[in-house]
Amino acid sequence: MCTQISTVSFSLPQWISNYIKDITYIETTEDRMNYVIEASRLNISEKTGGPFAAAIFEKDTGKLISLGVNLVTTQGLSMLHAEMVAIALAQKKLGTYDLSADGLAEHELVISSEPCAMCLGAIPWSGIRRVITGANDADVRAIGFDEGAKATDWKQALEERNIEVITEVMREDAVKVLLDYASDDGHIYNSRKAY
Amino acid sequence: MCTQISTVSFSLPQWISNYIKDITYIETTEDRMNYVIEASRLNISEKTGGPFAAAIFEKDTGKLISLGVNLVTTQGLSMLHAEMVAIALAQKKLGTYDLSADGLAEHELVISSEPCAMCLGAIPWSGIRRVITGANDADVRAIGFDEGAKATDWKQALEERNIEVITEVMREDAVKVLLDYASDDGHIYNSRKAY
Repeated sequence: MCTQISTVSFSLPQWISNYIKDITYIETTEDRMNYVIEASRLNISEKTGGPFAAAIFEKDTGKLISLGVNLVTTQGLSMLHAEMVAIALAQKKLGTYDLSADGLAEHELVISSEPCAMCLGAIPWSGIRRVITGANDADVRAIGFDEGAKATDWKQALEERNIEVITEVMREDAVKVLLDYASDDGHIYNSRKAY
Repeated sequence: MCTQISTVSFSLPQWISNYIKDITYIETTEDRMNYVIEASRLNISEKTGGPFAAAIFEKDTGKLISLGVNLVTTQGLSMLHAEMVAIALAQKKLGTYDLSADGLAEHELVISSEPCAMCLGAIPWSGIRRVITGANDADVRAIGFDEGAKATDWKQALEERNIEVITEVMREDAVKVLLDYASDDGHIYNSRKAY
């Protein structure tokens, strides 16, 4: 091959450091979701990607392990949905590809919107034990993003793998961010083109 | 947070450089698949990950754009299935998150085994226009890997997004690598535990 690339890197934008600076623990589910939704809003205003954010917490203590935002357009990688970023950061931080590895606390993934087909598929491999979502699938599709072809029984499929699912936590607040993004002519990338 | 990680990197193992060194174009579908299957075999013998490989080619010319292998266990990231690695490398090389961006040739993804739920979901976002697979879903599950909950009509779902799908190309050769891996007590990571 003419040019050979053998390393891929991606980085969080600078504003995230300030946003997470003093946060160590967040107690309630609603407060964790509120924190994630606010990150999705900042990702728009800071112009660092799509209107999506996700964080990983220790399920029982609420210890914040990682915060991810959608970085597809700014980092040039289609896989960098907020969930994938949060999972990768947590795995690097904890030194394992399995967040259910022996000796670790149980982890949950809090997402501003229901996961697309890719992120849904990524969750069982990650070792995440609970998923909490804000806006639902229809809310995301309503502003033009394609969520992909999910198994129709995706919640059941996760639960069969011992992953708890809680949906529509603070849905209205999460939807408001999506609608603001759409009404501000936010870029809806990779919505299916009529080739 | 106590430790803050803001950058994630992953790298191909050294042997890949030697393997792709003189390859620029591969003409036929079978030869492309053969090249990928051999990479999946080398990923086992070099002990750099699971028995899976994937490459991206220009569909019409056969120009090799990227070669990925499964790096989950060695790079500590559950998302590093061969397909995700190949897609990320190609996007970094071509400078865009959309391999169907204006001005680019059409690209195909050649995979030693049918994609799992995550990789299946990742394909439409990547801009790939054709998917070619070797071993099928049942072959992968037969050695103990969980492929995840896919939409039952996944081929149709890709085709509706104008992505062509060709399956079971050199399937027997691809299956042989899987069976050799399994019989050699290869690590079947993240197969679902009875929690």
